Amino acid sequence: MTINADRITFAEFDVPDTAEPALSTEEILAAHHGGKLTVTPSVPLAGARDLSIAYSPGVAEVSRAIAGDARLSANYTWAQRLVVVVSDGTAVLGLGDIGPRAALPVMEGKSALFKQFGGLNSIPVVLDTTDVDEIVETLVRLRPSFGAVNLEDVSAPRCFELERRLIEALDCPVMHDDQHGTAVVLLAAMRGACAVLGRELSGLRAVITGAGAAGVACANMLLTAGLTDVTVLDSRGILVPGRSGMNSVKADLAQRSNPRRLAGGEAEALAGADVFVGLSCAKLPEHLLATMAPEPMVFALSNPDPEVHPDIARRYAPIVATGRSDFPNQINNVLAFPGIFRGALDAGATRITEAMKLAAADAIFAVASDDLSPERIVPSPFDPRVAATVSSAVRAAADTR
Amino acid sequence: MTINADRITFAEFDVPDTAEPALSTEEILAAHHGGKLTVTPSVPLAGARDLSIAYSPGVAEVSRAIAGDARLSANYTWAQRLVVVVSDGTAVLGLGDIGPRAALPVMEGKSALFKQFGGLNSIPVVLDTTDVDEIVETLVRLRPSFGAVNLEDVSAPRCFELERRLIEALDCPVMHDDQHGTAVVLLAAMRGACAVLGRELSGLRAVITGAGAAGVACANMLLTAGLTDVTVLDSRGILVPGRSGMNSVKADLAQRSNPRRLAGGEAEALAGADVFVGLSCAKLPEHLLATMAPEPMVFALSNPDPEVHPDIARRYAPIVATGRSDFPNQINNVLAFPGIFRGALDAGATRITEAMKLAAADAIFAVASDDLSPERIVPSPFDPRVAATVSSAVRAAADTR
Repeated sequence: MTINADRITFAEFDVPDTAEPALSTEEILAAHHGGKLTVTPSVPLAGARDLSIAYSPGVAEVSRAIAGDARLSANYTWAQRLVVVVSDGTAVLGLGDIGPRAALPVMEGKSALFKQFGGLNSIPVVLDTTDVDEIVETLVRLRPSFGAVNLEDVSAPRCFELERRLIEALDCPVMHDDQHGTAVVLLAAMRGACAVLGRELSGLRAVITGAGAAGVACANMLLTAGLTDVTVLDSRGILVPGRSGMNSVKADLAQRSNPRRLAGGEAEALAGADVFVGLSCAKLPEHLLATMAPEPMVFALSNPDPEVHPDIARRYAPIVATGRSDFPNQINNVLAFPGIFRGALDAGATRITEAMKLAAADAIFAVASDDLSPERIVPSPFDPRVAATVSSAVRAAADTR
Repeated sequence: MTINADRITFAEFDVPDTAEPALSTEEILAAHHGGKLTVTPSVPLAGARDLSIAYSPGVAEVSRAIAGDARLSANYTWAQRLVVVVSDGTAVLGLGDIGPRAALPVMEGKSALFKQFGGLNSIPVVLDTTDVDEIVETLVRLRPSFGAVNLEDVSAPRCFELERRLIEALDCPVMHDDQHGTAVVLLAAMRGACAVLGRELSGLRAVITGAGAAGVACANMLLTAGLTDVTVLDSRGILVPGRSGMNSVKADLAQRSNPRRLAGGEAEALAGADVFVGLSCAKLPEHLLATMAPEPMVFALSNPDPEVHPDIARRYAPIVATGRSDFPNQINNVLAFPGIFRGALDAGATRITEAMKLAAADAIFAVASDDLSPERIVPSPFDPRVAATVSSAVRAAADTR
């Protein structure tokens, strides 16, 4: 059995030709059998002397040392550099609120990527509560067990309050990757696109469809990076002050964005725009592409189905990016999060600041910059320079904040 | 620098001769640098196709399958067979209430032993709360993340209520190893001693000094195994109905033990006793050994300082055991807990029953039984048959309960 065509292939388009055969459900399920992580001792335990060192009685020396000076726990336990990948399963991939057990395979995968790309130990923590107070309380109680929190697949707008409150409550790096990882890679890709096209980032007029976790974070990141004309849409249209049906996060963003106080929908927003960023799953009609400014950039990031097929978008836009690995210019969070957390932990940082995120975006761009083209505005996730460059930049940004 | 003599060597006696040089603090601390566990992906992540299978988009197939049938999480995540080693740091080794951060090196070691001896993934969870309600609540919220709970180093009498309430609240194996692991290995060793001496277990008169986690559990285990004359002492003397200064756990145990309704202290308890089980750190005066029944068994289990030096005890007792690896007959929990949890998880059990614990003790005895001697009443913890035999026996006992 192959995967149903309306699942991981386009609903409206043919699957692009690739050399690889399609993934079968059997192959995927077999790969996940028993889970995707293993814990192993990093000390020898083969004989009595090994046990005396690693466990009783030797370990008492270590516990006594930490009891005397709590800072030593950073040296003699794994916790200080352990990333917990935390989810309540309320916004998993494109599947929605499927609960913590069904979310766990995603979180295991994320933990696996932390080791593979960032060299960091990571464990998944899925919670049988969706109450923000309870999630914060739980992680505060678990605090001595870990060194950083990667929030994942938590629904908006709860994710904004949850991240803010965890940052307040925990003296360690906390980042909701669906927000900031996406935003960092988008910014890096836009820098790459600007370099290819000879454009100035700050002069771009950008439109973001989707005001969930990623949409809000991308808008904030672009504003922080110097763009002055960013317009965001939710399912009801353009965010503009005074519009009805906006939660507090959207109302705040409406104040800080959309300087021309546009109202309406995609048509009003896209007319003359330089950049389309799709994070909403809503299809982008081809005729609206024709209304954008000359040489626009199209980031059709919804997965698995981009807002517009890249082949269509390329008729109008010299730069087209998606979230998919089977098209050029994949906006893939794995370019950012391993290096961001690695750099923050290497620096001993207790916060992931705007400066660190901007540094991460610059570093991703820097890796791509020696070989840029319209089909390569970001590096490959498998380029070994990426995580090293990002972590160094983030560490430096943490040190100088 | 070598370890202070009053720490891991006897306070009153010379260190026994061994071929191994003494452990230095430097050597121990160096071994613990960065912690003792590592998490690695158990799936390939070297290329785009690997990522498509293990992460997006392939993982969506797995999440969707579990969302449709929650039982599939047992097949496609690591959680079902993941043991969390949970502590609040209130009774760590002989160090007492040193808190969760200082307890973590012990819990990491325990997790390492679960993999080394039981082949099970395990992670340490140390909690910044000592409130029983909050610990239960926290583990209930974390429930989708794990498959079994090894409680460790929680102070008595809180540990009794905590274990009972976790067993009620969680549909998975829960065991406080300081209680039951110790009790299982003690019972196995007593079976071995009986075989060496040609005695009947049920006919033994046993005295246990210490009514904390291990003392209470050992008393219960011996009563379950058929002993009828078990007397337990705390720091105020023999537990007997009506005595003052007993918490509810001790009062209950007083009712079920001490059939001759002895009152007093060690002298009254040990006169004519066949078995001494020391779990209190209080020294056992040599003259009381002389008052025991002929051919007694001495289990001087306090660590690092046994209640009586084995060389002294051997003047009176043909069977002498300690908790130390540098004397014969080490009563080491690692003989029990890896196989108990492995067997319970292999069976899909949701409880660790008395039958499973008795089966574990019998299995440990069975491994030793082909080569018993006064200096070998239990197998070596490094005998590879131990965990396999224990887990098979526990699994069978779970299936037939």
